[in-house]
Amino acid sequence: MKKIKVGVAGYGVIGQRLADGVALQGDMELVGIADLAPTLSIRALKEKGMPYDLYLVEGADRGRFDALEIPVSGTFEELVEKVDIMLDSSPGGVGAKNKELYEKKGVKAVFQGGEKNTVADVFFHGYANYEKGVGADYLKLTSCNTTGLIRSVDCLDRAYGIEKVAITIIRRVADPGDYHRGLTNALQIDKAPSHQAVDLMTIMPHIEATGILVHTPVTHGHIITVLASGKQKITKEMAIEAFSRHDRIRMVRIADGFLGNASLFRYARDLGNPRGDMYEIALWEESIVESGNDIMYAINIPQESVTIPETIDAIRAACKMQLTRETGTAETNKYLGIGRGNKVR
Amino acid sequence: MKKIKVGVAGYGVIGQRLADGVALQGDMELVGIADLAPTLSIRALKEKGMPYDLYLVEGADRGRFDALEIPVSGTFEELVEKVDIMLDSSPGGVGAKNKELYEKKGVKAVFQGGEKNTVADVFFHGYANYEKGVGADYLKLTSCNTTGLIRSVDCLDRAYGIEKVAITIIRRVADPGDYHRGLTNALQIDKAPSHQAVDLMTIMPHIEATGILVHTPVTHGHIITVLASGKQKITKEMAIEAFSRHDRIRMVRIADGFLGNASLFRYARDLGNPRGDMYEIALWEESIVESGNDIMYAINIPQESVTIPETIDAIRAACKMQLTRETGTAETNKYLGIGRGNKVR
Amino acid sequence: MKKIKVGVAGYGVIGQRLADGVALQGDMELVGIADLAPTLSIRALKEKGMPYDLYLVEGADRGRFDALEIPVSGTFEELVEKVDIMLDSSPGGVGAKNKELYEKKGVKAVFQGGEKNTVADVFFHGYANYEKGVGADYLKLTSCNTTGLIRSVDCLDRAYGIEKVAITIIRRVADPGDYHRGLTNALQIDKAPSHQAVDLMTIMPHIEATGILVHTPVTHGHIITVLASGKQKITKEMAIEAFSRHDRIRMVRIADGFLGNASLFRYARDLGNPRGDMYEIALWEESIVESGNDIMYAINIPQESVTIPETIDAIRAACKMQLTRETGTAETNKYLGIGRGNKVR
Amino acid sequence: MKKIKVGVAGYGVIGQRLADGVALQGDMELVGIADLAPTLSIRALKEKGMPYDLYLVEGADRGRFDALEIPVSGTFEELVEKVDIMLDSSPGGVGAKNKELYEKKGVKAVFQGGEKNTVADVFFHGYANYEKGVGADYLKLTSCNTTGLIRSVDCLDRAYGIEKVAITIIRRVADPGDYHRGLTNALQIDKAPSHQAVDLMTIMPHIEATGILVHTPVTHGHIITVLASGKQKITKEMAIEAFSRHDRIRMVRIADGFLGNASLFRYARDLGNPRGDMYEIALWEESIVESGNDIMYAINIPQESVTIPETIDAIRAACKMQLTRETGTAETNKYLGIGRGNKVR
Repeated sequence: MKKIKVGVAGYGVIGQRLADGVALQGDMELVGIADLAPTLSIRALKEKGMPYDLYLVEGADRGRFDALEIPVSGTFEELVEKVDIMLDSSPGGVGAKNKELYEKKGVKAVFQGGEKNTVADVFFHGYANYEKGVGADYLKLTSCNTTGLIRSVDCLDRAYGIEKVAITIIRRVADPGDYHRGLTNALQIDKAPSHQAVDLMTIMPHIEATGILVHTPVTHGHIITVLASGKQKITKEMAIEAFSRHDRIRMVRIADGFLGNASLFRYARDLGNPRGDMYEIALWEESIVESGNDIMYAINIPQESVTIPETIDAIRAACKMQLTRETGTAETNKYLGIGRGNKVR
Repeated sequence: MKKIKVGVAGYGVIGQRLADGVALQGDMELVGIADLAPTLSIRALKEKGMPYDLYLVEGADRGRFDALEIPVSGTFEELVEKVDIMLDSSPGGVGAKNKELYEKKGVKAVFQGGEKNTVADVFFHGYANYEKGVGADYLKLTSCNTTGLIRSVDCLDRAYGIEKVAITIIRRVADPGDYHRGLTNALQIDKAPSHQAVDLMTIMPHIEATGILVHTPVTHGHIITVLASGKQKITKEMAIEAFSRHDRIRMVRIADGFLGNASLFRYARDLGNPRGDMYEIALWEESIVESGNDIMYAINIPQESVTIPETIDAIRAACKMQLTRETGTAETNKYLGIGRGNKVR
Repeated sequence: MKKIKVGVAGYGVIGQRLADGVALQGDMELVGIADLAPTLSIRALKEKGMPYDLYLVEGADRGRFDALEIPVSGTFEELVEKVDIMLDSSPGGVGAKNKELYEKKGVKAVFQGGEKNTVADVFFHGYANYEKGVGADYLKLTSCNTTGLIRSVDCLDRAYGIEKVAITIIRRVADPGDYHRGLTNALQIDKAPSHQAVDLMTIMPHIEATGILVHTPVTHGHIITVLASGKQKITKEMAIEAFSRHDRIRMVRIADGFLGNASLFRYARDLGNPRGDMYEIALWEESIVESGNDIMYAINIPQESVTIPETIDAIRAACKMQLTRETGTAETNKYLGIGRGNKVR
Repeated sequence: MKKIKVGVAGYGVIGQRLADGVALQGDMELVGIADLAPTLSIRALKEKGMPYDLYLVEGADRGRFDALEIPVSGTFEELVEKVDIMLDSSPGGVGAKNKELYEKKGVKAVFQGGEKNTVADVFFHGYANYEKGVGADYLKLTSCNTTGLIRSVDCLDRAYGIEKVAITIIRRVADPGDYHRGLTNALQIDKAPSHQAVDLMTIMPHIEATGILVHTPVTHGHIITVLASGKQKITKEMAIEAFSRHDRIRMVRIADGFLGNASLFRYARDLGNPRGDMYEIALWEESIVESGNDIMYAINIPQESVTIPETIDAIRAACKMQLTRETGTAETNKYLGIGRGNKVR
């Protein structure tokens, strides 16, 4: 069977991980990545021996790459001509511009959460609306928080039916290594409702959602508390039962040492996961509490890597590699190794 | 009219503020404060010229105070003998032991949130159950988060009726200057439900409450998001209307520059408030969102000072200085200067 | 005797403290302060009842102030016409522009560290080169770190002679309440040598200095380690002897509870200092170590307030209120209350 | 040739990395690791499929491991009986107790920096005093800061001669994932001189050293500023020349994007290094400044991994696998892959 050819635009925090994720798929071929400048990420690629071919976007200074002896395989346009689909993780707004090229070359594309919804035909989530993406040309992924949040809400919704959701997002303000943004000894509040609640309603229009987001000065993982109102009474046991069956949800316990977002980062490093990344969201068993018909729980969102699986799901849907959410997500999970370890208790 | 004589046990973060607050009450007399060692707080008292008399608790090394030329006015027992009521802000557990002395000497006492509920006859909140404290001998204050939370919930409840509450507490992990505890680049989650939700139900038994608490590495103010389910539909305008009338709730706007807990701390410093403290909780106008019959909002809890007014209310109740919540809290507010500035917009 | 009339341009972190400091001087009159927008600082001024008159700089939207019922006393130009000297704590670069107005109106001015040295005739430090400022029209203050650093180096230099200095600046990255800058879980290094070392050589040209600056994610006080090479052997006792006599240096001990910059901030709050500010630098006794002819020590720089006394010294020098460093700094210290408390041990 | 058999006691932050490092050595065999409880590290080992055999130390509850289906290969004593040398990274103080067993069984051991110097015959550093360790039975490694510091000082000393050193250690206060220690919005100072300066003099007695240590609330890498006084004038170019030849020193530039300790952590993650670790210290080119005969520079110490190479050097010395520092460190570097990538610019 012919492999689907994939390119990645923007080799930053997300782009690097998309490239690594695609490279693991047995039925896909990573043709190359494109970027603008010899950033630390590109220098690391060079030091690793250029496992991926590098293409330069418009405006790049080829001389700087040559001076550093970083091999260049061609231009962004040349990359686009070689692929079936582009994963666009360019800085916000650039993806919309790139789309003109994709359209000209007849290439499909998946955009990341930083772009406006209008860039795409489908606002996509691998578990919640896979079928909407089947055969689509332009898809936009939900953002990291929304991706993880929807995994958990969709899980309960399919099992028991959910009517209403209220969330509090305790957001990490920067990624490890970020120097262009930060917060020092301060919490910061955003105008409500948070876009994640609004986005959830776009993907799952039968649910009413609202929420408040607070920024905190940490780098390892957002935490979201979710209050979900069921169509029926959902007990703690029922919630655990559903969550435990989900491949991209890892049930953890405070009592075992998973005290917060930093424990999960350390655990992923100790697992030997590349970059200390984790594809699964974690859900704390001791956080689950019932209140009348409502159930409340807390999840951890590994912001750098959580959208990778759903983005790869999007390739599968767009290119009609698998036609259903069950088969599409299962193939992604198989190649990424998701759903094995997190079932070990 | 004879002034009520008050003593303070434990001159730490809370004790210093209790002493300052009592000293401002025109109908109370601060007899003295008691502590164990020449801490920085005691050294600051000395440098300020000993505005309050110092008594030493059992186990204190008098020689250390003499060597530092810190005047000592007597023993803890001698202090207790001189007062009508003690405010006990000793470290957790010590208050229960001190109670034996209070009982022996026939002195009333108000304990802080660190003690067990069983230390007191009444678990007290100035606005929610003032009348229960009237004439009581031993009262325990709600903790800082619970005190501020109940202010807002009681406010809505009296105006419109509240049935259910779900909270997320984004807790500051240390006070400015704390070196005995801290958290670095990590969020930490507690077993749910949080004690604040449970305590709210103890004070307001007609409301069902649950919640999750997450610790964050900051020092200026907890933030709590509250989802309150009304007996009737509560609109944003109705909520603003009620909150704006409450003397101990300060409505603020992100648009005005109140971006988070640190803005409020800076504002209190710029106001010239001693220590940069604020007695009011702040409530962000832009955080208020409706969702069906529910209303959601976020409040800021200035953890070092928020319980001071309610503790002084407790003196008024216990000593029957005022017999109703309206009159008791009004006197406290008058002497503390609460409810003037925060109505300036 | 006629009081010197002073205006303050820019009512931010520094400007507020300059205004408060001038207001305390018995031989000066604070005519007013000028700013552009109804910031939180201006709102706090309003809530306090407008203790200082407010003038608006060019570009200010008078309507916004009127809408908030904030009284306005006139324009920036009108303020300048009423004063003998302006303290300019405008954002960096604006001071240079304001200078044109000062020159036109024949008004002296003192600029803060953010302006270029060329804005002024004299780069000034109250203790190190007071006499250079006597009668000068335009002075620029050293920055906060340099001001505190020079206090300590000048102190040793006058007592024993210093030839060389090497510093490491452990810089707080934001002030409490800052949301426009920050750093999260990261140290950041600047190109060496740090400007503070270069500035020290400008003020004290007989000393050779170098240094490295590292930014840290905290808000309460920079810490500087200083390695000073004496013309003669300087023992720890000799250093303590000299430092203890300096009014703007507060000797502190780790053993007493002064564990770091946050302890000092808490102590200043507990002292009842407005905003929890401290004018003195702190110097840890246990940090002083000898190494051959060199002596090494660590100081704490309260970045928000440390330059206030030296700025007021600059008024005294520029306006020839006192002609010598001894008399000029002594008057400033007297009115600010410096040098009393910090001698209490 | 027979492989040297190695065991690791204590499978925490350091122990895990020692095990991984030994497993990479072609001339060593990792027999197993020993620990007390099913920590997150042990759970990660289980989830990875038990690449290393686990032995239980005295006091371990075997039932807990069985319940979690974690295979156990035997007791600590059984592990010790199977090896030639133990790497002891037990909690501080436990190593000294373990030594009794090592002596009884005639097994050599290398202790980590947390133990007292008296536990060992030789206080060891691979580059500075390798020959002292040759054939020794009990060695103690320098701590992480001292190990990295000595690399740089020894490098300059061998090239040009160093007489004196003054250091400022800007210490990260916790590792990623630590919840048992932390610091929030505070710098903390230690009594001077820092132990690292004292330890440097123990290892390199011909150098006079002093220093001050300040704790900062970050988790990724200590930064040390070093002022080194040469026997001769050392220029910036001379320093770069020497540092660039050292396999375990990575020269980096701020201009390339290495803005601080967090950039280096991110870079190591992007390199694909397990856990995002780096064995080399980094030295910023732009930090190097001359001052008379002195040279000043700043280095980054990756605290979790920096001692691994020198610990493996210690095995080589103790077991007489190589008899000189050049050959011993070269073998370690070869197997760990050190000295290739960091020469790529």
